[in-house]
Amino acid sequence: MPSGTSETRDEHRDAAERGRPRYAYLGPAGTFTEAALRQIASPDGAVFLPQVDVVSAIEAVRTGAADHAVVAIESSVEGSVTAVLDTLATGDPLVLQGEMIVPVSFVLAARPGTGLSAVRRVAAHPHAWAQCRRWLLQNLPDGVHVPATSNTAPAAAMATGERELGFDAALVPPPAVEAYGLVPLADDVADNHHAVTRFVLVGRPGPVPPRTGADKTTLVVHLPSNQAGALLEMLEQFAARGVNLSRIESRPLGDSLGRYSFSIDVEGHVDDERVAEALMGLHRVCPHVRFLGSYPRVDTPHGDVRPGTYDADFLAARAWVQALRDGRAH
Amino acid sequence: MPSGTSETRDEHRDAAERGRPRYAYLGPAGTFTEAALRQIASPDGAVFLPQVDVVSAIEAVRTGAADHAVVAIESSVEGSVTAVLDTLATGDPLVLQGEMIVPVSFVLAARPGTGLSAVRRVAAHPHAWAQCRRWLLQNLPDGVHVPATSNTAPAAAMATGERELGFDAALVPPPAVEAYGLVPLADDVADNHHAVTRFVLVGRPGPVPPRTGADKTTLVVHLPSNQAGALLEMLEQFAARGVNLSRIESRPLGDSLGRYSFSIDVEGHVDDERVAEALMGLHRVCPHVRFLGSYPRVDTPHGDVRPGTYDADFLAARAWVQALRDGRAH
Amino acid sequence: MPSGTSETRDEHRDAAERGRPRYAYLGPAGTFTEAALRQIASPDGAVFLPQVDVVSAIEAVRTGAADHAVVAIESSVEGSVTAVLDTLATGDPLVLQGEMIVPVSFVLAARPGTGLSAVRRVAAHPHAWAQCRRWLLQNLPDGVHVPATSNTAPAAAMATGERELGFDAALVPPPAVEAYGLVPLADDVADNHHAVTRFVLVGRPGPVPPRTGADKTTLVVHLPSNQAGALLEMLEQFAARGVNLSRIESRPLGDSLGRYSFSIDVEGHVDDERVAEALMGLHRVCPHVRFLGSYPRVDTPHGDVRPGTYDADFLAARAWVQALRDGRAH
Amino acid sequence: MPSGTSETRDEHRDAAERGRPRYAYLGPAGTFTEAALRQIASPDGAVFLPQVDVVSAIEAVRTGAADHAVVAIESSVEGSVTAVLDTLATGDPLVLQGEMIVPVSFVLAARPGTGLSAVRRVAAHPHAWAQCRRWLLQNLPDGVHVPATSNTAPAAAMATGERELGFDAALVPPPAVEAYGLVPLADDVADNHHAVTRFVLVGRPGPVPPRTGADKTTLVVHLPSNQAGALLEMLEQFAARGVNLSRIESRPLGDSLGRYSFSIDVEGHVDDERVAEALMGLHRVCPHVRFLGSYPRVDTPHGDVRPGTYDADFLAARAWVQALRDGRAH
Repeated sequence: MPSGTSETRDEHRDAAERGRPRYAYLGPAGTFTEAALRQIASPDGAVFLPQVDVVSAIEAVRTGAADHAVVAIESSVEGSVTAVLDTLATGDPLVLQGEMIVPVSFVLAARPGTGLSAVRRVAAHPHAWAQCRRWLLQNLPDGVHVPATSNTAPAAAMATGERELGFDAALVPPPAVEAYGLVPLADDVADNHHAVTRFVLVGRPGPVPPRTGADKTTLVVHLPSNQAGALLEMLEQFAARGVNLSRIESRPLGDSLGRYSFSIDVEGHVDDERVAEALMGLHRVCPHVRFLGSYPRVDTPHGDVRPGTYDADFLAARAWVQALRDGRAH
Repeated sequence: MPSGTSETRDEHRDAAERGRPRYAYLGPAGTFTEAALRQIASPDGAVFLPQVDVVSAIEAVRTGAADHAVVAIESSVEGSVTAVLDTLATGDPLVLQGEMIVPVSFVLAARPGTGLSAVRRVAAHPHAWAQCRRWLLQNLPDGVHVPATSNTAPAAAMATGERELGFDAALVPPPAVEAYGLVPLADDVADNHHAVTRFVLVGRPGPVPPRTGADKTTLVVHLPSNQAGALLEMLEQFAARGVNLSRIESRPLGDSLGRYSFSIDVEGHVDDERVAEALMGLHRVCPHVRFLGSYPRVDTPHGDVRPGTYDADFLAARAWVQALRDGRAH
Repeated sequence: MPSGTSETRDEHRDAAERGRPRYAYLGPAGTFTEAALRQIASPDGAVFLPQVDVVSAIEAVRTGAADHAVVAIESSVEGSVTAVLDTLATGDPLVLQGEMIVPVSFVLAARPGTGLSAVRRVAAHPHAWAQCRRWLLQNLPDGVHVPATSNTAPAAAMATGERELGFDAALVPPPAVEAYGLVPLADDVADNHHAVTRFVLVGRPGPVPPRTGADKTTLVVHLPSNQAGALLEMLEQFAARGVNLSRIESRPLGDSLGRYSFSIDVEGHVDDERVAEALMGLHRVCPHVRFLGSYPRVDTPHGDVRPGTYDADFLAARAWVQALRDGRAH
Repeated sequence: MPSGTSETRDEHRDAAERGRPRYAYLGPAGTFTEAALRQIASPDGAVFLPQVDVVSAIEAVRTGAADHAVVAIESSVEGSVTAVLDTLATGDPLVLQGEMIVPVSFVLAARPGTGLSAVRRVAAHPHAWAQCRRWLLQNLPDGVHVPATSNTAPAAAMATGERELGFDAALVPPPAVEAYGLVPLADDVADNHHAVTRFVLVGRPGPVPPRTGADKTTLVVHLPSNQAGALLEMLEQFAARGVNLSRIESRPLGDSLGRYSFSIDVEGHVDDERVAEALMGLHRVCPHVRFLGSYPRVDTPHGDVRPGTYDADFLAARAWVQALRDGRAH
């Protein structure tokens, strides 16, 4: 459900007419999601459509109000964004067309004219505060936490002319500094410099992005049965073809406890023979498989491609079996 | 961190002195969590300690402010409560001592004197509204949704003397009716009558509850490696002993994307030989295994116990191998 | 190496010219192998070429001296005929084109004029005697064993005019009765009426016999490595496609102890998709796979075809993946 | 069935009375089996009881006529000695107490007074001739094969005073040289210098030989079912505990085609925890398991012991589970 008014709807239509791609994302301006979006599009060449939540962003693609959505799917600290998984798993088909990794680090920002030494009260969403606690202890030992309702709310408050803010500076996502005309007092504020969030680019089904050699494929799979061993049987479809999994997440089917679907990322592209054959195996043994796209990966693969699972191996094997069938080889 | 004031702290101390068990749970009065708690304890024989969130409820047991916590761990609709999983997985050891299933159905309740025919504006948390949409359409086709911030907030508002509420009735959890002196207009309001939430009873480590024959064991397991096949190898430790899994959930280890721990429920008790041997296998091949307790299960098992995996089979097998070692049997 | 003289060689050439198929088999006339051969050919329409041993019979096909060989490959009592397995596993390619099951039961036969009551001394190969011991105890309690060097040797002796045989009757294969002009005193002499020998029809590579729906495929597979788990990995290539094994036999590779190849019969035809895909898997992960043919089976399959492993399932799965690749389906 | 006369029976009794161990083996003097026997016993300290075949040698232990038997179980060229496997697999329990490896190399030997240059006609069992063909081509290019009925028959013939032998020299096993008073013309005659035969020492059940750290355990296992996957399930009992197999051989159960038992050697001792637990697993899931002993191995292991499968790992795992059960650990 896009949050747009009739006015913005007209703007959407204009954008579509002029061919500028429209991106729905978790707004308002200045969020980490916007940082992800800016990795692949610029406001000059695209229409940015901020949404109130991730479900709205995805649904905007389904309704046609947007061409793409950019949504967080997984955090290295918090885990999967289940609302995104569930919204993609059912309903009209959508596909993932790319992924973006955004480091979870903040900027300590203030209104122009404020220096670091003057900062005592720091506005921050509780998650942001928790992820910067050690930095604050070392750099602002007298700092006091003023809780905020979102990462961008204190930035928006500073952008107003309001005299009394109740805080001196705020921990905000990097894009919020420019978006709200703030001044950075410290960059790259974070305790765990490996913390990242993974975002995906969602679109409507169409031609699969070409294979790059470093791709990822996302699937939703229902287990063949509730019996012990059903999960094992499903995983063996990948193992028998040497396909590595980079993410696996169980989600309830919703009808009763203990019935699950699995959201899975595998290393490889549907055009890779090993992935194609594993998909065929899943299609045969699982009651439901939804293909959510193959797209270039930006993180590091978990393992090397196993000998015997390259395309050349599959093609040679298929040619050999064909020759056997034709009585040409032994 | 219990939210109690010094006054309630004294009460806690008194309770402990008098031997009445103290239960921390997600408050305030009238929540589904309280419904779960009331399945195992009564306010007459126990001290109920409402907490602001599930993490606080669990931590209250760690600090000693409570003897037990009751927290939701899994919903048949929403999936796992990840904050609960993560809080149990690290920090001082705690164990699960029981589970409770609570149907997710609501009561349409109002102040005394209000009849169903007078109801037009219905206060409800958006989740509650979503889960009762069809019922409302059939029974209150002219009903208008007035969003509430929690399941109990509208009940608390009705309990005050305040004249103008902004709504006529509310969808509230069953325990809220009595807790806030309301009148039920309709019971068992729900679209999906199979929707349930599973709660667990958390306590400090101690003697394991005795085996009942219908038990569950909860574990946290880190995978031996990041390689393809590591998950398969872990699951085979269960399969080789015929141990069924009733829940499996991946959680990020937090250091980088693609590194997971698994939260697992298995059918059986640590005193069952098949479970004990599977645990031994995990201890040998996985870098980290945390035992979160064995306790009576209340839901239905997924599969029968496989032939050859009863205790008698393990004991006979062990006796046979011992006889082989002693040169007594062949 | 065919044992034929130059005279029989000419006869071979004539047969080939006249288009009568030539069958090499373990001779002389009257053996169980001849019984197997007679299931598929008659001496009227084919040339029977008795050989001194099974290796010679197989090699006669390689040299072109015969079109086919019929050799025992497996006995339900003795197990595999390893000379046959090894001769097929290496050397110029040959294929199996059919199988025949011959019950291992004997005829108690004598020269014309001898009645059962006159029989005291019974000539028999020690294996034959062992397999009829209980029958003899019941029907000829006073019978004395006169060991013979082969199943047909006593029949040949009776066929000569020689006066003194040293025995009164003999246990011989059924075809020996007619071949040597004997009189049957008792048919179907055997203790275990389920004992059978399986024979195979060997030929030169060419078009694979068409699929009948009840077929068998024979393979020789070298393991990918000597590591624990290599056999498991090979078997999983079958299991992942639901292919049943009806025979598995390890044979030494010959270079050192503990290095094996496996001779395997699977249920199904190379034209069955599940068999083809399993063969592809073996070709990818095993250093050496020799296809020894697909042919109609005569024994009973071990298990039903598993749901999801019919040709239609493979074709639907392949079409689905193709549609995914084309961006046509999700 | 021991072949001894009443005279040798007395000798047996004497030997037993005097405490000299009695060894049954495939005779006559001079065989490869005797070479194996001499690796562990000397005729000075033991009674050597030559037998006509391997079954007789094994049965001599069952009847008490011998204390031990030495029999070939496996050749790196020919594979398993199935008569030995089958005789051990059923009947009164026996155990393996040791193994010996004997290289398959021959001595070209003649009567005293014969020089190599005078040799033209060479007596040899056809197997021996086949295994030395290249050596003979290089060293005796004009040599002519005179087939012998056993490896020792030509040696025995040369030991008699008989004038006309029909050959000038013979390929004999090394022990035959001394046993028959021959002269070696060439030692270590063989084409494949890696060809070996493995022999086992068979005895009556009793205390298991102590663990040496380099041991082997021999088993006979019937599969749990005839279904596809039954072999896989059996092998997983080994894999789940990291137990390596060094030999696996299928043998027919004898009742119908396609029903097998498996003869298996695993690396390790029943006193190794990983072997003991795998045996327990087999005992639980297989209808029949026969333990044929643990004994020091003389060949090289196939793989290293896997991390997590040392005794210390099992003991730590068991202690951990015991602590869990006692409520002492988490």
